[in-house]
Amino acid sequence: MYIDKAEIEQLEKQKRVHLINSLGGFKSVALVGTADENKKTNLAIFSSIFHIGANPPLIGMIFRPSPPERDTMRNILETGFYTINHINENLYKQAHQTSARYDKDISEFDVTGLKPVYKNNFFAPFVSESHLQLGIDFKEKIDISINNTTIIIGEIVQIYLPENCLHEDGFIDLEKANTITCSGLDSYHKTIQLDRLSYAKPDKEITSLL
Amino acid sequence: MYIDKAEIEQLEKQKRVHLINSLGGFKSVALVGTADENKKTNLAIFSSIFHIGANPPLIGMIFRPSPPERDTMRNILETGFYTINHINENLYKQAHQTSARYDKDISEFDVTGLKPVYKNNFFAPFVSESHLQLGIDFKEKIDISINNTTIIIGEIVQIYLPENCLHEDGFIDLEKANTITCSGLDSYHKTIQLDRLSYAKPDKEITSLL
Repeated sequence: MYIDKAEIEQLEKQKRVHLINSLGGFKSVALVGTADENKKTNLAIFSSIFHIGANPPLIGMIFRPSPPERDTMRNILETGFYTINHINENLYKQAHQTSARYDKDISEFDVTGLKPVYKNNFFAPFVSESHLQLGIDFKEKIDISINNTTIIIGEIVQIYLPENCLHEDGFIDLEKANTITCSGLDSYHKTIQLDRLSYAKPDKEITSLL
Repeated sequence: MYIDKAEIEQLEKQKRVHLINSLGGFKSVALVGTADENKKTNLAIFSSIFHIGANPPLIGMIFRPSPPERDTMRNILETGFYTINHINENLYKQAHQTSARYDKDISEFDVTGLKPVYKNNFFAPFVSESHLQLGIDFKEKIDISINNTTIIIGEIVQIYLPENCLHEDGFIDLEKANTITCSGLDSYHKTIQLDRLSYAKPDKEITSLL
């Protein structure tokens, strides 16, 4: 089946949103925890988180010019800190509910029953029910003029993870940590590992690391 | 288990690369096909592809300042076109092999046996074995100064997909298309759908769309 540029442009708006969102493939999905200067908490689901580099350890997120992500971005710019909390099979429905457009004075922690937890003097709240939690120090804001989106880049400064998920070589077994993935706007998936493959070199056969 | 900023900085380089790469969660992984002005083809695996917006339909990729991604970026800037081809269970080993550092005069299509295919007058080659192929028109290059990486943004102008994967509302069933996901530098995973959830609203229970 072939869909060309003209057909994409003519798609009904919501249908295009579902289609284009699906085309990017499986995505990282996580809960971003913030607080404003008065310690009022906010929690929002993001499926636009991406690795930027390991040295320094940087992670990026895309913000669209619309709620409910506004509170999150304002808090990040106001305070400089946020948390990224992996979503597991037990909390993805609560995580999805945070995408509803709540008023600013309502905390998504209260509404969903997810529990904020503060650790090691980090300003922003972590999600207690998440198995893999990251404390992020805001570094850079990049505006994408083509469609008025914004990229927020931060440095990973705190990592909390289950000890049995960390391999000797630094690889984290995300399946063991129960981290899930998503596709499109609303589809959640667990995973089954196919393999870990050796570092690829010309004229050398790839081998399994498992 | 808690790892703080000082410990992250002290990690041995390759261990840090594995660790930080894993922290971003499951990622989209795809083969990017390009050709230079002389129609010499190139194929490279990328796990840094992310959705930017549906209107216009934009997709982003991160380029690190190192091979083998250099050929891909040069071809994109030189010709303005590239393809993004989803990876399925049957071709992920060949896809992984494209990450080896081949000389510029060697095409990863030849080395891996994956077949380039040209369609509807699109300049860049698609991967014949991929079930979900996108033709992309280069739009914008953004340099991230913190770590010398580059974001390439393009518009999706051609979409090829199996007809039975496209739902009425625009959602694409990526599992039916056999698209896989990856984590870290070298781990590949297939998925099992947990659910599709209804659009979240305050004071309304989420329901399953399945």
